[in-house]
Amino acid sequence: MTAEIITIGDEILIGQTVDTNSTFIAKEFNKIGLSINRISSIKDAEVDILNTLQRSVNCSDIVIVTGGLGPTNDDITKNTLLKFFNDKLITDRNVLDNIKFLWKKYIKQPLLQVNIDQSLVPSKAHVFINNNGSAPGLWMTKDKTTFIFLPGVPFEMKALIKHSVIPKILKEFSLPHILHKTILTYGMGESSIAEKIKEWEDNLPVDISFAYLPSLGRVKLRLSTKGVDLSKITANIQFQIDKLIPLIKDVFVGYEEDESIQKLISNRLIKNNSTISLAESFTGGKIADSLVSIIGASTFFKGSLVCYSTESKKNILKIDEDIIKKHTVVSSHVVESMAIKVKEMFSSDYGLATTGNAGPDKGDSDKEIGTVYIGIATPKEVYSFEFNFGNSRERVTQKSVNKSFELLLKELLKN
Amino acid sequence: MTAEIITIGDEILIGQTVDTNSTFIAKEFNKIGLSINRISSIKDAEVDILNTLQRSVNCSDIVIVTGGLGPTNDDITKNTLLKFFNDKLITDRNVLDNIKFLWKKYIKQPLLQVNIDQSLVPSKAHVFINNNGSAPGLWMTKDKTTFIFLPGVPFEMKALIKHSVIPKILKEFSLPHILHKTILTYGMGESSIAEKIKEWEDNLPVDISFAYLPSLGRVKLRLSTKGVDLSKITANIQFQIDKLIPLIKDVFVGYEEDESIQKLISNRLIKNNSTISLAESFTGGKIADSLVSIIGASTFFKGSLVCYSTESKKNILKIDEDIIKKHTVVSSHVVESMAIKVKEMFSSDYGLATTGNAGPDKGDSDKEIGTVYIGIATPKEVYSFEFNFGNSRERVTQKSVNKSFELLLKELLKN
Repeated sequence: MTAEIITIGDEILIGQTVDTNSTFIAKEFNKIGLSINRISSIKDAEVDILNTLQRSVNCSDIVIVTGGLGPTNDDITKNTLLKFFNDKLITDRNVLDNIKFLWKKYIKQPLLQVNIDQSLVPSKAHVFINNNGSAPGLWMTKDKTTFIFLPGVPFEMKALIKHSVIPKILKEFSLPHILHKTILTYGMGESSIAEKIKEWEDNLPVDISFAYLPSLGRVKLRLSTKGVDLSKITANIQFQIDKLIPLIKDVFVGYEEDESIQKLISNRLIKNNSTISLAESFTGGKIADSLVSIIGASTFFKGSLVCYSTESKKNILKIDEDIIKKHTVVSSHVVESMAIKVKEMFSSDYGLATTGNAGPDKGDSDKEIGTVYIGIATPKEVYSFEFNFGNSRERVTQKSVNKSFELLLKELLKN
Repeated sequence: MTAEIITIGDEILIGQTVDTNSTFIAKEFNKIGLSINRISSIKDAEVDILNTLQRSVNCSDIVIVTGGLGPTNDDITKNTLLKFFNDKLITDRNVLDNIKFLWKKYIKQPLLQVNIDQSLVPSKAHVFINNNGSAPGLWMTKDKTTFIFLPGVPFEMKALIKHSVIPKILKEFSLPHILHKTILTYGMGESSIAEKIKEWEDNLPVDISFAYLPSLGRVKLRLSTKGVDLSKITANIQFQIDKLIPLIKDVFVGYEEDESIQKLISNRLIKNNSTISLAESFTGGKIADSLVSIIGASTFFKGSLVCYSTESKKNILKIDEDIIKKHTVVSSHVVESMAIKVKEMFSSDYGLATTGNAGPDKGDSDKEIGTVYIGIATPKEVYSFEFNFGNSRERVTQKSVNKSFELLLKELLKN
């Protein structure tokens, strides 16, 4: 069983919108054992849509198509698929009732004819009601291929995938299990890791594939396999991981699962019944944002002070002015003081602080652009590290966020 | 002239990585007048790569291929393109010197044979030196199509596109101008906007295309055109915009340009010589992060207090305990108090605050999940709005961030 994704919409092709829909669909499909072989983004143009649909017939078993189902003139998917399936539109009463309900309860604006017209669906389609918008999902078949058309608005598409599409796929098809296990490493390049684990990698069985995913100071290592017997493939992957981990123990920090290093930190803090607060300078709330996005963050995350200016470091965090004068705001002395002060301010067990020059200007310091200090205050001590993450504001910031999580997790794993 | 993008890598197809590379390339190509007709993501598998490359020959003028050029075993692009172009590898001295330089200056780890092998390139390729990594860019042709192969690591790819690929494309080809102008609207659905501007839209000239991009409480309206005479197409677009704006004046907030509503806010604050600070509860640093990402934010952004817990609202922001008891933390009284207190704390001209229940649990309040309050303190007054943004933590948070920027810009435009 293979699947592919087609996204329709000029906004992706001109670089205005990032295609996060495909990422979501690919991840959800992998969980139920469906491999995505290809993702295509094409224009809102009839000829492009028809050619791309035609090419998928009998080539993929399932084709998910998103976008172009809205009520405005630039949305042409529905009329195009009438040609493709040689079909006509009929009114679906359930869709119409749903639209009336949504307009009354949430939209609270007049129901226009274009909104009512959203209840017109191809007569051959199995229809999925969209609880979050007017465009329903459509399930249609041509030869041996199933086509599923969904609106491109992310939260509408996501709800339809989870509550309608996946249950129907599981009912109609018998699928194997796909298993990915991703190992997080921090602090060594991919080629050095590859050399360390060469013998292990060369001896991997053919049904387990292995990939390196390098990104800004960290490398993810992914093992993947597929099979009908979940416990057997789980054991096979675990067997290989048990051999791999000792080879990379210096750089191994954990497993990605569906989550991330933030989730590992969260688990650890909750387990230790510990709390943390942050003092973020140039990282400007990025670390806080990552932590808050974890459900249940309120049990361990006390808060963050985004003290972007030197003034706020002095007036709000109460960093000693003499320390700043003597060492500048971008220094180990200041970052350690920030970590201690924020920990006190929020009465947390740990404090993490960042200060640095992300560029493009030097700001209130004479340190090189790219210079970053990360400080950690624990219940027992305070310490910090200096880094130079080169240039590009975005990259320096993201590397600093990644490094902060790496250092924090290492600290928490000491207990 | 048409172009397409092919990204190679299983990580996109299993939903582990979002394809931001294509977004970047599409945007940069649009700026120089190159339209992207298709984006394809395919597996690290020889047959998939060969089929996809073959399909592009004489179909697109330029094909950008990213990914699969790394030094590890899962990277097979280079060997595959030897087959496709019927070529062989030779050592490129400049690439080798560059690798030696990078390893000495930045990597500071032993130079392994796999790293040295990165200087082997197809003999028919024009080579672009990669200043950020070991894999060079490659420019090759087959029949009438130019293929450009780049590493998939985002910052390496980006630098190669900007400093090597685009200059060479501009040298080799004569390109028209592509112009997009995007209008930001907040507070009205796409079908209602479409009805308001129907006559205008029906009378648009055929060489101007128009699209609606709805997302969480805002709709972007995009006009696009193409032509050799930049001043003429600019005037044509402006002529249409001048007719459009009066029709949507209630919901129009500005133009997107390359930036966003944050940039409009930043421009306005800088122009008025005003400063702002934030008190973020459930938005957890997301608003601060958006503002800090604007270059020059330090001139107007004083800082943010992420006061996620009720405790931090009381102890650090000094919100009156009686107000919290009487109205709960999710209330207009508390959000207005937060806006005032944070403005005082950071000595800024404006204070913006958020409080709400993003779910999945109710937290320290009895308000419905999805209830959000946004408060703004100005030099003269304080006020707030209540919203219900439904469910899904992610969606409630993002809608609140968008709405905060909308309300803030409206406030700033009053002066």
